[in-house]
Amino acid sequence: MSTTSTPTATGVWLIGARGSVATTAVAGCAAVAAGLQPATGMVTETPPFADSGLPALGSLVFGGHDTSGCPLPKRAEQLVSAGVLPHGLPAAVLGELAAADAEIRGGGPLPGDTRSEEELIDSFADDIRDFVRRQGLGRAVVVNVASTEALPGEGAGLPASSLYAAAALRAGCPYVNFTPSTGLHHPVLAAPAAASGLPYSGRDGKTGQTLLRSVLAPMFLQRALAVRAWSGTNLLGGGDGAALADPGAAAAKNAGKERVLADVFGSAPEGEVHIDDVPALGDWKTAWDHIAFDGFLGSRMVLQTTWQGCDSALAAPLILDLARLVARAAELGIAGPLPELGFYFKDPDGGGSAALGEQYKALVDFAGRLREEGA
Amino acid sequence: MSTTSTPTATGVWLIGARGSVATTAVAGCAAVAAGLQPATGMVTETPPFADSGLPALGSLVFGGHDTSGCPLPKRAEQLVSAGVLPHGLPAAVLGELAAADAEIRGGGPLPGDTRSEEELIDSFADDIRDFVRRQGLGRAVVVNVASTEALPGEGAGLPASSLYAAAALRAGCPYVNFTPSTGLHHPVLAAPAAASGLPYSGRDGKTGQTLLRSVLAPMFLQRALAVRAWSGTNLLGGGDGAALADPGAAAAKNAGKERVLADVFGSAPEGEVHIDDVPALGDWKTAWDHIAFDGFLGSRMVLQTTWQGCDSALAAPLILDLARLVARAAELGIAGPLPELGFYFKDPDGGGSAALGEQYKALVDFAGRLREEGA
Amino acid sequence: MSTTSTPTATGVWLIGARGSVATTAVAGCAAVAAGLQPATGMVTETPPFADSGLPALGSLVFGGHDTSGCPLPKRAEQLVSAGVLPHGLPAAVLGELAAADAEIRGGGPLPGDTRSEEELIDSFADDIRDFVRRQGLGRAVVVNVASTEALPGEGAGLPASSLYAAAALRAGCPYVNFTPSTGLHHPVLAAPAAASGLPYSGRDGKTGQTLLRSVLAPMFLQRALAVRAWSGTNLLGGGDGAALADPGAAAAKNAGKERVLADVFGSAPEGEVHIDDVPALGDWKTAWDHIAFDGFLGSRMVLQTTWQGCDSALAAPLILDLARLVARAAELGIAGPLPELGFYFKDPDGGGSAALGEQYKALVDFAGRLREEGA
Amino acid sequence: MSTTSTPTATGVWLIGARGSVATTAVAGCAAVAAGLQPATGMVTETPPFADSGLPALGSLVFGGHDTSGCPLPKRAEQLVSAGVLPHGLPAAVLGELAAADAEIRGGGPLPGDTRSEEELIDSFADDIRDFVRRQGLGRAVVVNVASTEALPGEGAGLPASSLYAAAALRAGCPYVNFTPSTGLHHPVLAAPAAASGLPYSGRDGKTGQTLLRSVLAPMFLQRALAVRAWSGTNLLGGGDGAALADPGAAAAKNAGKERVLADVFGSAPEGEVHIDDVPALGDWKTAWDHIAFDGFLGSRMVLQTTWQGCDSALAAPLILDLARLVARAAELGIAGPLPELGFYFKDPDGGGSAALGEQYKALVDFAGRLREEGA
Repeated sequence: MSTTSTPTATGVWLIGARGSVATTAVAGCAAVAAGLQPATGMVTETPPFADSGLPALGSLVFGGHDTSGCPLPKRAEQLVSAGVLPHGLPAAVLGELAAADAEIRGGGPLPGDTRSEEELIDSFADDIRDFVRRQGLGRAVVVNVASTEALPGEGAGLPASSLYAAAALRAGCPYVNFTPSTGLHHPVLAAPAAASGLPYSGRDGKTGQTLLRSVLAPMFLQRALAVRAWSGTNLLGGGDGAALADPGAAAAKNAGKERVLADVFGSAPEGEVHIDDVPALGDWKTAWDHIAFDGFLGSRMVLQTTWQGCDSALAAPLILDLARLVARAAELGIAGPLPELGFYFKDPDGGGSAALGEQYKALVDFAGRLREEGA
Repeated sequence: MSTTSTPTATGVWLIGARGSVATTAVAGCAAVAAGLQPATGMVTETPPFADSGLPALGSLVFGGHDTSGCPLPKRAEQLVSAGVLPHGLPAAVLGELAAADAEIRGGGPLPGDTRSEEELIDSFADDIRDFVRRQGLGRAVVVNVASTEALPGEGAGLPASSLYAAAALRAGCPYVNFTPSTGLHHPVLAAPAAASGLPYSGRDGKTGQTLLRSVLAPMFLQRALAVRAWSGTNLLGGGDGAALADPGAAAAKNAGKERVLADVFGSAPEGEVHIDDVPALGDWKTAWDHIAFDGFLGSRMVLQTTWQGCDSALAAPLILDLARLVARAAELGIAGPLPELGFYFKDPDGGGSAALGEQYKALVDFAGRLREEGA
Repeated sequence: MSTTSTPTATGVWLIGARGSVATTAVAGCAAVAAGLQPATGMVTETPPFADSGLPALGSLVFGGHDTSGCPLPKRAEQLVSAGVLPHGLPAAVLGELAAADAEIRGGGPLPGDTRSEEELIDSFADDIRDFVRRQGLGRAVVVNVASTEALPGEGAGLPASSLYAAAALRAGCPYVNFTPSTGLHHPVLAAPAAASGLPYSGRDGKTGQTLLRSVLAPMFLQRALAVRAWSGTNLLGGGDGAALADPGAAAAKNAGKERVLADVFGSAPEGEVHIDDVPALGDWKTAWDHIAFDGFLGSRMVLQTTWQGCDSALAAPLILDLARLVARAAELGIAGPLPELGFYFKDPDGGGSAALGEQYKALVDFAGRLREEGA
Repeated sequence: MSTTSTPTATGVWLIGARGSVATTAVAGCAAVAAGLQPATGMVTETPPFADSGLPALGSLVFGGHDTSGCPLPKRAEQLVSAGVLPHGLPAAVLGELAAADAEIRGGGPLPGDTRSEEELIDSFADDIRDFVRRQGLGRAVVVNVASTEALPGEGAGLPASSLYAAAALRAGCPYVNFTPSTGLHHPVLAAPAAASGLPYSGRDGKTGQTLLRSVLAPMFLQRALAVRAWSGTNLLGGGDGAALADPGAAAAKNAGKERVLADVFGSAPEGEVHIDDVPALGDWKTAWDHIAFDGFLGSRMVLQTTWQGCDSALAAPLILDLARLVARAAELGIAGPLPELGFYFKDPDGGGSAALGEQYKALVDFAGRLREEGA
């Protein structure tokens, strides 16, 4: 990552640029690029992606929108206290954090903002174009890592996530939606997206419970074991916990979780999913799943899983992966939804298998296509 | 399953024919064939196998060797008490249980048996040939479901499992080894197996903890997450628990479990596997796994799984699957190890991927090959 | 238990007499009295209660109210299928089940019932008095084991559980409330209860998650460990699961669960409790608890518990315990709430410690008092 | 804690003074005394102990024996990296760490040491007497927190832990054994201990799995539930994990764990306990317990617990508790084993109840006795 970017540098414009995921991505990208940390969790740093022409980590330049004003170096220190970032890391990458911080613009709309939707989109698109111009970037990818929105009501206007997605299109930028928010999935944006000639990818990154479900559900199916009920509880604090304590946001999140099971089994089995805000857990998440299934001759069996992870540390390397993959796709003129990136999402744009193994194969095949088309 | 078998009937000769797995397989085959129970857990009853020319469940005829004299109907009632078989099932399939019981011959060698290895092999092979002739079978498949043996010492003679495997070859029967015992994996048997023109398959069925590992380990690998330690404890009673309380037998079992991790990751991570004999649990098994892994920037995370299942109910449908698949392969003249059946095993004959998803794809491809070659 | 009761026989009048708990209590009492089953789970059959003058199990005579018409022997067979009762038990105690069934009267009020509250109470009290007279009982104890009611709204009339509690007072019977429903806890019943001279006990039996909490919470307190969040999820099917899927009923249930933590710690820690209706689990319940706590110097630690139990089998022996203890108390003229029985309840009438160890000591002391006052 | 101790200061002489537990105790004592950290996990800082005349935390002076030469400030920094101590703590209490470090003497016997047992004991006793004299202490308590020794063989000489215990007696110091090592439990030391007029306490602190067992086992007993099997696995890295990978040391540790169950139930239920060395876990320990129990009418139920804690953080405050309590007892002339401290131990000197609730009551009563006898 370089603060004086070269003409071939690639921009990563983060919606929610001062959040935990974004801060971890910016700090982590710098640390890995500098050789301070291994690239654990970054799929694009593994051998199958070596010759795919992805932008180098050191060539990524960060900016974004956020409604918060807390400087990135300070956010990074907060993440050290929370156990997300290692001690000493913020100081080691202070230059890169400050550089990204200087490229963050105010998001919106905030309460009282009287601008029309069109004005907001224009304003956001201008921010992104300025970033590209000022940094002399080849292109920028817009990535949504903001807090989950409530499911929009009927007839309401565009939710904020869709305003930003429209701004990405208007600024000519590929778009990635790592959250369950609406983003490009709004009827009003279908035609512009199709006409844009840009690649885009989403929706709702899978980092924990759903990641597990995407390997366990196929296992039950392939072994012809009859899943009778699949129940789950998530405990998490931090911003995500608070956002998801909103029933509307939780509903958006759960829709993605259940989609995996419904896709694999044909219909969703019995069972609920709870998301609890437990501030004491901070950025750490615990997910418990209980799967009741039948074996031969009706024998009743149970699998339980407990996943204890740090959401920001799970999401951040995938953000870097996605930004690199989508930037490269745009470079090669690939347009439209990228179902080959279903590996990363609960509810993949463009559909495809919900089984992680098949998604991984599709991703590696895509890496090959990027290599060949770029040759 | 028919007690008056037709010329096209297929024999299933079970080593350990009075054990829990064998009894469950015989009773369950009859129940499913009669429509009394669904085919839960039988992969070969799912759509991809519909036209592969597998022998019908109703055409399977059972017999086998065992050193125990307890009649199958009585064993079945014991399994009802143990919660493995549903109430009423033994009575409903009494005819089939009695028919199979009449085809069980004494196994060996028992203490004091003075026969030479050659004599034992001849005797076992004669038993199998008599079964085929008497029942007018097209062929019989020999399946080892006996208790796990200790790892054989250097320079010792053939262990019992290898005597039975040699008898299968001598009787011209395909062979399946569902246990971690040596079976065909003895240097002395390598040449005869290669010369036999018969298909064979093994070793060590994966039904619980290792099944899980075969989907979870690839998940960590594909997501570039660094597994630091993988520890496990198995609690089980019943015959298997007692057999595996023998350190030698446990070592044989654990070798297979660790092989999956070593295959996926390149080398086995830290961590031990314990197998405890807990008679109070009877035929039910609980397996706890604890996986410590690193995410981005060295964040430390943990996945735990608890699997509570009935080993006999997990294994029995796979036994039926394997007997059908190997019988069909033999019918089509396919010979040698069948790596396409790695889906079923901890330590697959012929090698291949250790990832369940890829193993499933290979199995379905094999089903297609059986269909096409038989057309 | 005897169908031709002697003058010293004791009645147990169950509200919800055809439910799973009641059926298990009636069948189990007969089985234990006949020596067919051990008295596992019955605290009053342990040595400290040997000389307390409790009515013998064989002297208990059962009857009750229920709105269901399903005969007890049929309910018992359903519980066999559900894995709650052992095979063969209903047949072995058919006489006792039929005798109890003959003493069950229709409950109420059902929809469309136009009787006033007074008329309903009178009718219920008449049913109980008839039972006592017809069976020639020394006394009867009324025990509420009906499905949990929703929390009553402001200004509403008496909920059904309170109508039955009023009937118990009117019929001169001690009363036990094993559910979180209102029962005697209604302002209108405070004065009659105090004036009745009868003992009573409740509320909301603790059989699983709360039982665990009543030993774990004191452990954290005594060790000066700082509990930061205590979260829980309950999965259960059967009637209880369906009843508690009603948010009002769940709220009633959860109030009791949280009371234990609030009592021990002074205030309730962070964390929610979920109760999910999972019909696939039938009468079996799984409760997962996640406790985040701080140790020395702020180190963050976690305890998780998973309890897999059969609610009816956990509750039924406690019902028998309570009926015997309260009957004996009434015999000795002990009146009012019995805080000494807090061992059995989430929200004990009369208060007292919420720590199980102290509650057990109080219970054993009470056994001594029953012995001494009866001497 | 004061580096210029007053005549009333109390010494704490730690065997294993450079280990994780000792380092955490020294650093934590300073931090709590200075008000930098709350006294979480210190039972003696709770109200029942307020007036018992215990030495103030600020009056404790530390020294000890160790065979390692790594300075305490460096050990403290290692514990920061391991996540045991908070960042910044070692710097904040550097003076106290350095002062304690200056009072650490070489332990033994190291390989090649030719001194006799008597010479070793004399040497150790001299070290302790010098410490008391040099620091002008009222008294010193010797506390064993060294790595667990293997169970001593028949006829062997005194193990190292017993040499130190003998040195404590010779130096006139009360003795606490927080480990399962032999310490004072050697036949040769029985008479000197009895004649010493000193109080002593042990053995084998309970900080995790056994702490849980001491509340769960009484729960099952009090509820008359029949425990059929209790199995457990401990995963831990750090020095303790490595020490306990030695089968002899593990046997010593497990004896204590099983003693709790045997004491509560009259005999130990089925089930094994494993202790695995998992270096990846560092100082953090995970303990999984699986308890199979029967309820009413033979219904089979299961409780599982998973405890994830930091052993040093769990043990260190108890070390401070014990040193204060035993020092105060000595001050009041109380001699011999202190069964009142069974709350802290797996295998309490002097016996007493194994139920934590009763042990807590005995401890609080002891606090009252210290208050009254000192008045």
